[in-house]
Amino acid sequence: MVAYTDFLTTDSLSQYEDSDKYTKEWVPLIEKYRSDLAAATPEELKVKLPKDFDALVEEQFNPLEYLYSEKLLTPEEFALTDSSASSLASRIAAGELTAVQVFKAFSKRAVIAHQFTNCAMDFFIDEGLKRAEYLDEYFKKNGKTVGPLHGVPVSLKEHMNYKNRITHGGYVSLLKNVPKTSSATVQILEDLGAVYYIRTTQPQTLMHLDSANNISGLTRNPYNMSLSSGGSSSGEGAVVAFGGSALGVGSDIGGSIRGPAAFSGCIGLRPTSKRVSLNGGVSSGAGQESVPAVIGPFARTVEDIDLWMKSYVNEGKPWLVDPNSLPMPWRPVEAPDAKSLTIAVMYDDGNVRPSPAVTRGLNFTVEKLKSAGVNVVEFKPIRTKEAYETVHKMYNCDGNYMQRKLLAASGEPLVKLTKWSLNYGNGEKNYTVKENRELNVIRDSLKQDYNDFLLQNKIDFILSPTYNNAAPRSEEVFNWSYTSLFNILDFPTLVFQTGLKQDPKIDVWPAEAANYTYRSELEKLENENYIPENFINAPIGLQLSGRRYFDEEVVAAGKTIVQILGADLLKH
Amino acid sequence: MVAYTDFLTTDSLSQYEDSDKYTKEWVPLIEKYRSDLAAATPEELKVKLPKDFDALVEEQFNPLEYLYSEKLLTPEEFALTDSSASSLASRIAAGELTAVQVFKAFSKRAVIAHQFTNCAMDFFIDEGLKRAEYLDEYFKKNGKTVGPLHGVPVSLKEHMNYKNRITHGGYVSLLKNVPKTSSATVQILEDLGAVYYIRTTQPQTLMHLDSANNISGLTRNPYNMSLSSGGSSSGEGAVVAFGGSALGVGSDIGGSIRGPAAFSGCIGLRPTSKRVSLNGGVSSGAGQESVPAVIGPFARTVEDIDLWMKSYVNEGKPWLVDPNSLPMPWRPVEAPDAKSLTIAVMYDDGNVRPSPAVTRGLNFTVEKLKSAGVNVVEFKPIRTKEAYETVHKMYNCDGNYMQRKLLAASGEPLVKLTKWSLNYGNGEKNYTVKENRELNVIRDSLKQDYNDFLLQNKIDFILSPTYNNAAPRSEEVFNWSYTSLFNILDFPTLVFQTGLKQDPKIDVWPAEAANYTYRSELEKLENENYIPENFINAPIGLQLSGRRYFDEEVVAAGKTIVQILGADLLKH
Repeated sequence: MVAYTDFLTTDSLSQYEDSDKYTKEWVPLIEKYRSDLAAATPEELKVKLPKDFDALVEEQFNPLEYLYSEKLLTPEEFALTDSSASSLASRIAAGELTAVQVFKAFSKRAVIAHQFTNCAMDFFIDEGLKRAEYLDEYFKKNGKTVGPLHGVPVSLKEHMNYKNRITHGGYVSLLKNVPKTSSATVQILEDLGAVYYIRTTQPQTLMHLDSANNISGLTRNPYNMSLSSGGSSSGEGAVVAFGGSALGVGSDIGGSIRGPAAFSGCIGLRPTSKRVSLNGGVSSGAGQESVPAVIGPFARTVEDIDLWMKSYVNEGKPWLVDPNSLPMPWRPVEAPDAKSLTIAVMYDDGNVRPSPAVTRGLNFTVEKLKSAGVNVVEFKPIRTKEAYETVHKMYNCDGNYMQRKLLAASGEPLVKLTKWSLNYGNGEKNYTVKENRELNVIRDSLKQDYNDFLLQNKIDFILSPTYNNAAPRSEEVFNWSYTSLFNILDFPTLVFQTGLKQDPKIDVWPAEAANYTYRSELEKLENENYIPENFINAPIGLQLSGRRYFDEEVVAAGKTIVQILGADLLKH
Repeated sequence: MVAYTDFLTTDSLSQYEDSDKYTKEWVPLIEKYRSDLAAATPEELKVKLPKDFDALVEEQFNPLEYLYSEKLLTPEEFALTDSSASSLASRIAAGELTAVQVFKAFSKRAVIAHQFTNCAMDFFIDEGLKRAEYLDEYFKKNGKTVGPLHGVPVSLKEHMNYKNRITHGGYVSLLKNVPKTSSATVQILEDLGAVYYIRTTQPQTLMHLDSANNISGLTRNPYNMSLSSGGSSSGEGAVVAFGGSALGVGSDIGGSIRGPAAFSGCIGLRPTSKRVSLNGGVSSGAGQESVPAVIGPFARTVEDIDLWMKSYVNEGKPWLVDPNSLPMPWRPVEAPDAKSLTIAVMYDDGNVRPSPAVTRGLNFTVEKLKSAGVNVVEFKPIRTKEAYETVHKMYNCDGNYMQRKLLAASGEPLVKLTKWSLNYGNGEKNYTVKENRELNVIRDSLKQDYNDFLLQNKIDFILSPTYNNAAPRSEEVFNWSYTSLFNILDFPTLVFQTGLKQDPKIDVWPAEAANYTYRSELEKLENENYIPENFINAPIGLQLSGRRYFDEEVVAAGKTIVQILGADLLKH
């Protein structure tokens, strides 16, 4: 049995922690933050939990199923919150719905989502209601909307600056950080008509595909409370999949949109870099540009991902406020005919073997696609180990300087996966510029190889697992190789749902796997963690990646694929 | 009096040089290279120099004036070589001209340009002629062109890979480097119909605004042989301004397109990064992305700059071969009405005071623009000293590792301005990634400030000097602050000609300048170098900069401005 601690080599992790300082100066702030959050969670919107929270976790409780079976919402509330954002926006714009009516339904469902999944860092439902009222008045008075997202309830990952509200990004040391203005993207979406009321959880350092942090604790999976909702956009995955917001906003440098979307059971897009503005937020990555972070959307339909991107880019025009954003319009691209598509499938990236559930999801999808006429070919991974090792070095090549600065300021305890990610690459080695440039050269040659592969073989997209497992258990997600590949390549990548869920009866290692020889200790650690009985109902979500800057084509093909799979997340 | 050597602090410059190795192993290769170049320069196209070359340098000889006064070309050759590339391309496409006819005129003029300015590194006129013949046959057979540049004679800065030809980038150690394929951009332009026959000079290390190197020596200014043609696209400036090619291709990381265009008397565009592919060429900057290098066009009309960019981007589609190139179409933008424009003028960047000639050029331009109805406002430089210091640090923040590698491999002697540029920033200090990220943060905040300034004040463009002097004397160009500002900002910048030339009778420091207090030793060094009698006829070219990625608007406004100034470079 491999222990994750075998991988930890960074000797100076103790330099981050200061138990005395933390307890004395910061724990009171955490307690205040938590009680403020509790106070901001309206009692009248809460439901009674069927059992004690810990008992629900223990029994792998499925809150989404419970929501429907127990009819925790009224039929009207269900109808509204199980509408697509596109439909809500157009019905509000047609005067068929009010923003207030929509808001009330979503805020109620968001509160229930939070009760079961612990997805909220920050609630401000009163403000959201006032905003919805204002939008209704505006519409009544002017006979038109403020923009294409008029009245759409939108959730926000917490680390993006929000004017006059604490913005900590999962770092205890930033619990006093109150920005005066919202981040560029938060402001743009607001100007387009979004209604805000919830900001959602993320892990300590933002560098986990999980949710653990010292401020709000773990975020739970809406399909199985013992599982992780993913990370680092932990709360976005949970709240959007649960139906507590119509659209979400997350960020991704190693899988932080795609992990939560896949694990929690919704849809997420990691756009190509520089299409969505990063200006104004908390992260350890200021000035880091070897592997670009991106902000991107969460939704329950691919059409809504399209709505988000189209509205944001074409009407939000982020380049007017951010010279690092590309003035590249979001092109209208029709969902392609299945028969026109060639998709290469990566069954295994050569680093960590996917679990039987993931393989079943891939095989199911491939069969459906083939039946619909898609030309499916096998993708033999290109330099995936090198990509994995290179991107890991890039994450930490400032010697974790910024992480140490942000963590050591409060002396907060390092959670398990923080220690893990601080050990990526060469851990505390502060690279020289010469060494960093060498990594960039490897990265560019990887981009070139993948681009050439796609073009020379006339392959439109790569279909791959999002992770070697479906949703993992909390604090047990170690391998990023399936997602981080597309960060180092900077390829737009959509996570969609197959509609399948993990089933411990079916998803067992095949008999021949008994003789499997692990290709690495990491693979052994990950594969040994897969005990079928522990992952009941974990959603099986996959990745679809396309060429850099061709986000529109990826989203359009996603529509076709979801249509073929019949995986409608709004139907329960 | 300030000596440039006072600025040199890099102790280890001697580690680059190895006189014995250089003399024994490399000088023979240089001699072979030079004799090959001489042999490739057709005798039958040469003219007789009016005097010994050195005597012409001494007397500040103006070869362009001589070309016309002595009628060194036939009337037909003049007519062809003083046509715009746009006109040539459309007349070839209409069957009114042949590619061979055009090629013969340009290759003759290119040879004369080389005789006076030493602008060529590599001639292959026979191959060019065969290519022109092939294109004519193709046209005859198919009744159409291969692309929008069918038959246009194009010159290439040498450091871009050219298949099966030595590509050294000014480094002696690369005299054996023979790439098997051409660089992405060379291949794209060829596919569009360009005819190649000359590759042009650049300085040692590519990091001078001048031309000195150990392979071909200095490149001379086509308006005054004692002056520099600029650099690092030294030969491009000279050959295009002289009319020896219809379009040129250079590169720019600190002013290397704009310096040569301004000094030599033509037009050049530094596009925003990632619009033109950098793939495949010699430079010390692999993996360096703090301050992006760019490739861009030279021409004698702004319409030709537009043709180059439009053809290259929209038909060349560099993103098909280079995943780092933006699939951002070149938008059609009409030349704006003068009355619709607001232009902010930078009379002095606060670092180095412009010479009287440059100030006269600015004042002349401003008066003309105002008369035409342009709203001209004064631009008070924003953080220009910080920008200058930051970009200088960025150039060398690998501790000159790559430069040392490329230079020390041959042990070639360091020319004066190589020593100068190796001392930029902190010279040999190999920055850590943490430190480099801090520079990137400064850069991004500069971009933000300039972007905000333009948008918030509704200013369309910034008009500025290209350098604090008109064309400098060779090996006497120390300050990059006017050009490198737009490299760190990554703002598209067009250099155009005012039509004015330095005149020692007019361009003297005003009386009140006697009491001028130098703001820095660099300013003193630069200003003391301005002795009006030394710069006779130096062209006065200025910069027009716009917002990042809005290259089309900059080029369109350039058309309006050149029209207002009446500075037609095709009329002599």
